[in-house]
Amino acid sequence: MNGLKECRSTWNYRTADTLNDALTGADFVVISIMPGTFDEMESDVHAPEAFGIWQSVGDTTGPGGLFRALRTIPMFEEFAAAIRTCCPDAWVINYTNPMTLCVKTLYRVFPQIKAFGCCHEVFGTQELLGKVLRDVAGIPDVEREDIKVNVVGVNHFTWLTATRYQDIDLYPLYRKFAEKYRATGYKEKADNNWLNHYFTSREKVKLDLFLRFGVIAAAGDRHLAEFCPGSWYLKNPETVRSWGFELTPVSWRREELKERLARSERLYTGTEQPKVSLTGEEGVQQMRALLGLRDLVTNVNLPNTGQIPNLPLGAVVETNAHFCADSVRPVMAGPLPETIYPLVNRICGIQELLSTAAAQRDLSMAFQAFLMDPNMPLGPEDAGKLFEIMRKNTASYLTMYQE
Amino acid sequence: MNGLKECRSTWNYRTADTLNDALTGADFVVISIMPGTFDEMESDVHAPEAFGIWQSVGDTTGPGGLFRALRTIPMFEEFAAAIRTCCPDAWVINYTNPMTLCVKTLYRVFPQIKAFGCCHEVFGTQELLGKVLRDVAGIPDVEREDIKVNVVGVNHFTWLTATRYQDIDLYPLYRKFAEKYRATGYKEKADNNWLNHYFTSREKVKLDLFLRFGVIAAAGDRHLAEFCPGSWYLKNPETVRSWGFELTPVSWRREELKERLARSERLYTGTEQPKVSLTGEEGVQQMRALLGLRDLVTNVNLPNTGQIPNLPLGAVVETNAHFCADSVRPVMAGPLPETIYPLVNRICGIQELLSTAAAQRDLSMAFQAFLMDPNMPLGPEDAGKLFEIMRKNTASYLTMYQE
Amino acid sequence: MNGLKECRSTWNYRTADTLNDALTGADFVVISIMPGTFDEMESDVHAPEAFGIWQSVGDTTGPGGLFRALRTIPMFEEFAAAIRTCCPDAWVINYTNPMTLCVKTLYRVFPQIKAFGCCHEVFGTQELLGKVLRDVAGIPDVEREDIKVNVVGVNHFTWLTATRYQDIDLYPLYRKFAEKYRATGYKEKADNNWLNHYFTSREKVKLDLFLRFGVIAAAGDRHLAEFCPGSWYLKNPETVRSWGFELTPVSWRREELKERLARSERLYTGTEQPKVSLTGEEGVQQMRALLGLRDLVTNVNLPNTGQIPNLPLGAVVETNAHFCADSVRPVMAGPLPETIYPLVNRICGIQELLSTAAAQRDLSMAFQAFLMDPNMPLGPEDAGKLFEIMRKNTASYLTMYQE
Amino acid sequence: MNGLKECRSTWNYRTADTLNDALTGADFVVISIMPGTFDEMESDVHAPEAFGIWQSVGDTTGPGGLFRALRTIPMFEEFAAAIRTCCPDAWVINYTNPMTLCVKTLYRVFPQIKAFGCCHEVFGTQELLGKVLRDVAGIPDVEREDIKVNVVGVNHFTWLTATRYQDIDLYPLYRKFAEKYRATGYKEKADNNWLNHYFTSREKVKLDLFLRFGVIAAAGDRHLAEFCPGSWYLKNPETVRSWGFELTPVSWRREELKERLARSERLYTGTEQPKVSLTGEEGVQQMRALLGLRDLVTNVNLPNTGQIPNLPLGAVVETNAHFCADSVRPVMAGPLPETIYPLVNRICGIQELLSTAAAQRDLSMAFQAFLMDPNMPLGPEDAGKLFEIMRKNTASYLTMYQE
Repeated sequence: MNGLKECRSTWNYRTADTLNDALTGADFVVISIMPGTFDEMESDVHAPEAFGIWQSVGDTTGPGGLFRALRTIPMFEEFAAAIRTCCPDAWVINYTNPMTLCVKTLYRVFPQIKAFGCCHEVFGTQELLGKVLRDVAGIPDVEREDIKVNVVGVNHFTWLTATRYQDIDLYPLYRKFAEKYRATGYKEKADNNWLNHYFTSREKVKLDLFLRFGVIAAAGDRHLAEFCPGSWYLKNPETVRSWGFELTPVSWRREELKERLARSERLYTGTEQPKVSLTGEEGVQQMRALLGLRDLVTNVNLPNTGQIPNLPLGAVVETNAHFCADSVRPVMAGPLPETIYPLVNRICGIQELLSTAAAQRDLSMAFQAFLMDPNMPLGPEDAGKLFEIMRKNTASYLTMYQE
Repeated sequence: MNGLKECRSTWNYRTADTLNDALTGADFVVISIMPGTFDEMESDVHAPEAFGIWQSVGDTTGPGGLFRALRTIPMFEEFAAAIRTCCPDAWVINYTNPMTLCVKTLYRVFPQIKAFGCCHEVFGTQELLGKVLRDVAGIPDVEREDIKVNVVGVNHFTWLTATRYQDIDLYPLYRKFAEKYRATGYKEKADNNWLNHYFTSREKVKLDLFLRFGVIAAAGDRHLAEFCPGSWYLKNPETVRSWGFELTPVSWRREELKERLARSERLYTGTEQPKVSLTGEEGVQQMRALLGLRDLVTNVNLPNTGQIPNLPLGAVVETNAHFCADSVRPVMAGPLPETIYPLVNRICGIQELLSTAAAQRDLSMAFQAFLMDPNMPLGPEDAGKLFEIMRKNTASYLTMYQE
Repeated sequence: MNGLKECRSTWNYRTADTLNDALTGADFVVISIMPGTFDEMESDVHAPEAFGIWQSVGDTTGPGGLFRALRTIPMFEEFAAAIRTCCPDAWVINYTNPMTLCVKTLYRVFPQIKAFGCCHEVFGTQELLGKVLRDVAGIPDVEREDIKVNVVGVNHFTWLTATRYQDIDLYPLYRKFAEKYRATGYKEKADNNWLNHYFTSREKVKLDLFLRFGVIAAAGDRHLAEFCPGSWYLKNPETVRSWGFELTPVSWRREELKERLARSERLYTGTEQPKVSLTGEEGVQQMRALLGLRDLVTNVNLPNTGQIPNLPLGAVVETNAHFCADSVRPVMAGPLPETIYPLVNRICGIQELLSTAAAQRDLSMAFQAFLMDPNMPLGPEDAGKLFEIMRKNTASYLTMYQE
Repeated sequence: MNGLKECRSTWNYRTADTLNDALTGADFVVISIMPGTFDEMESDVHAPEAFGIWQSVGDTTGPGGLFRALRTIPMFEEFAAAIRTCCPDAWVINYTNPMTLCVKTLYRVFPQIKAFGCCHEVFGTQELLGKVLRDVAGIPDVEREDIKVNVVGVNHFTWLTATRYQDIDLYPLYRKFAEKYRATGYKEKADNNWLNHYFTSREKVKLDLFLRFGVIAAAGDRHLAEFCPGSWYLKNPETVRSWGFELTPVSWRREELKERLARSERLYTGTEQPKVSLTGEEGVQQMRALLGLRDLVTNVNLPNTGQIPNLPLGAVVETNAHFCADSVRPVMAGPLPETIYPLVNRICGIQELLSTAAAQRDLSMAFQAFLMDPNMPLGPEDAGKLFEIMRKNTASYLTMYQE
């Protein structure tokens, strides 16, 4: 990369053989891992299908998200402990899912950690609001950074209680938009060329949640659907299709990975030339702000110290935060509106329970959380069978738990 | 009554033609009403069955409890307003269900009201604990007042986080008991002669909840089951039977009422002689304490001012409270254990939402609560059909709501 | 004692040579110590007089209370650690002053401790209210247990926000009483034969605080005065006298101790016969309740878990609590009335600061608390001189602090 | 102004004859009034001197601030009511002192008001930190906006718990600076040409507070001194001088006003030409942000919704807040450090009490607050005399209060 003439600065890259080697001397730690392999993800996503449980992503909540959490939390315990030892003053940015539980684990193990979780789902909703401006009000080309939003919720189940562009309140525009597209869904032509249809949606879930509860949901439909009772949007593949999104099969992820690895090989061997361009990655701006080079207010995942007064203190929540020199402080987001409070608080409580279950290596407590999931239509007996199947499928990553 | 020789004191009875007449000059107000008739209750309990939803009581939660609340809340608004006008300093004891929302409404309309809700379910669990003492530890004849309990939760979904008899911790005894009777359930012979089998259970739900979540549930199984996801104990009549309790049909209530009315007639005409005996009714002791004649600590329903720190302030919760001269103050019950927090907090949030929906006469908001109920397996479309059927069935009591 | 015929039960007494020996096997631990000797107390109480600072007790707050705390807190750290080791399940009753900081230290060092602080000052105010009933309403001989009170505040600066005898609200009676005796003070003839005038007062401070702030103060005047700005009641000995109470000199305490020791000698040698009588000591009833033999609601000192919502969580506060089998739970006392909130919260904050200063062995932080005391009229320079004098006077008990 | 060639935009000015006329149609309301005249201020500041009470400003706290509040609060009640009627959606910026109580009153009367209080004292401290950078670290010319600060406290008694310039932590530098100038104070040459020495200081109070309590105080010394016990910095004029600041006499303010009015006259008659320049006024940037033209994080006064968790909810506090399109939301500032908690919380409680006293037009309650002020060395009797003198002096502005 450093040889490319478009490249304006020189970068030093190094791979490390051990965690401690990687962390020692770090100013910033970026955590972005795949916990386990696609084999475990195959179980997470698809094993429940035999019991009539369908998941669109399976990495955050639901039976799949739960098992992913069980194997990820012990890894994050190691990360937190190593950061405490090797670079306690470093800023830690997590991108790994399940976001809430990853960030929770970092703070549980090392309460003084300077960590936050960065997720792109709200940004996608800001982009959608830009399209709303164009579609309903004829205002084109608004950048997502110029769409101001107040964010409340937990990761992937985030909501906007206020949103404006300059002096325009976007709530009434969004209502028009939602009513216009409630039946058909909204689909921009060619709005993604690198991601295929498994990642896109017609925003019907988002519009339905708005029309039903009066608050703008701010994550992709595939995520939002998984936090609602399974009977709403995920009853079966036909229901999913009728809501305009897709269940992402792990087989597709395997194929897509093959393509990415092939491209890596081409880049490495010089068969393909890398292109240098700005990614727009928020993490870059977050780091610049932490270095004291700018102010930034953006949404991140942090333990609740009161920014959402009606969620439990200490639970990891997603709201705006103010980034400046060596400082990230939540902006007071205010309470969850009462129409969505029961939906979100339930998730919050289940994730806290799962956090304790993993911390105590207690699969029986994890099963309690499993039973309470909104996308769990089974009674205790059948749920127990599914739990045991999923545990066995991923047992090599769960050796620290007693059976 | 005053003519009976066993009667030690003279009572004056008066029926009143108007609410204001009844309330003016009152020192104590006891509210115990049937909101609507058995026709409405027939709809509450049985209409959902056509959609595969089974309810054991249907008066507190679930589709039936929700519609009962919708017609009850406006009545309680009238009660609260009349009490504010006619007897603002009176103590108000509510026995009507849905308990939580009745008490909530009294405080919403008249925040200075001196009201609390009294329910007998916890007392029943204390009696069960007496049987545990006999069965497991060979200690007979312990009075329920001598079983000390710390109560947390919401009405009919209450839990005991600590319970002792003198210097004996009942938790380990209860575990033995639960393991002994988990398969068969526990049934005392002839433990009720005035209530038939529709009101009894084998305590299997209670024991299962304990073995699963580690906390003693303190209400009848028929109530407890309705607050859990429908798939657990109420999937269908066979499941219900396998858990050792019964669905109480409204037809049985009609019959039972006929008998009670017949007995009233016999008492009125002198065909039958009344018998005077102590009822053991807690309300009597509560009144004596409020008059400054004794101290009493017992469990009641009151707005949360912090007695359960992890439930929302202002929501009506059930905990112990200290009764003394003109004073009822909650005892700090402590937080809900995290294993049951998601179950109970969900109920709390849904009931707060329903309270607002009724206050605003907003059926669309009420439908949001309907959709979120743990005993609601339907998607929005089918749920909407059921809601509309139940609304029409009880429309004469819902005229204050816009359709 | 066991030989006396009036003695109904047999007691075993044992002195122990070590703390661990005393604690091992204990079910109840009663802590009642003199931290240091009268020489240190001489400094606590009288050294500030040279700087124009007068103290009526000097054991809880003010310069004297602060130095007493500095030498007491390390002792209580040892007690807490030993209890954790030797008898972690024992109930611990503290009578030692400074009460708030003793109880705070027990919980700081051993958070799971089952401890509370018992103080008799509120009981004295209940007795005064009995006299109010007689004096103003002609109702004689009411027992203090029958005067119901709601207690809020911190130890020795406690207040009653409600008080009743049966159906009589004592607030209007107390107002009549306060107006009647505001000028002269109230003095019952011969109301104490075992304590001389250094412990009595004419209740003028208490009545003045009521007339000024509208809330009944519930501790002896000698204590109450010390928590108010020094200019109010403690400006100089003449001011003190004009308010009808006395500064208790340590010389008197020395004399009184001599007498008590002489009596002990007489009892030991048989020159004097012991008399057996009920003391009315609340601790006995508290123990009986903890053993499950009765219910009891009485006022004690405990960490704030929300019983006083407008004082900091974790600070030790005094309110009613419900005692029953192996359980002490605060009764929700409600917020401090806003007229007295600034007075009490200030004390609470200073004591929390002093707790941290002692925990960190930081005399410079202790001096911050010293400077903020309501009975501290000096600027930093003079205050520093006094602090150093008092430190040197008591240096043999402060060896664990860095100078 | 519009005729000046340097003037880039056209402004329309209008004076209004009535409050309603001024407010109708307003998008922004700026409140900057003198409550009463210099005659009242003369009493506020100087009347207490006869009782040995010295005040450096007398407009925020202390006896002077209290009487200023008593006459200002009823005015702000009118403002709030008129805003509710005439322009409920306008943003309201208050500059008037006493800031805390002015903002409190606006929210008390009209809870939905979109108001905040803007004060320049923290900005002055940021400028001082720029000088620290130059003096101690040799880094010149840093703009105050580039000094990042976390603000906690109440207006004029604000503190910085963290402050950085880029990657430099200013706390260790400030410690060096404080130790260097603790004896002499710090004085830049010719750092003010328009304000005379009555407004400047040598920062000795600020440095002393830092060295004593370990936290950077962020307001002018003249204000800070008034919130501390009077014996610390305001004992008498000599003490004041020894701390390097001045008591601002009202006579000086009268003179200075004459000069300003004379200049107005010259500008009006054209004898003097106006000069157009940027003021750097933060209010301009706040308005631009509210219009959606930029993001801004700056410190303002707002009701506490949890941004300072250990101050009472609802009390007006000063912290950073995020300004964006039609939105001002506090940034979580975190708790007050425990060393300064008793100092600041006391003020907060007194101001809440004074707010209620004024709302209820209760001078007796106002006198309670008067007695509790840190700069009140008098006992109740003398304090009562002073209170009565000050009341009479300003009686024409206090007609709404019962005597």
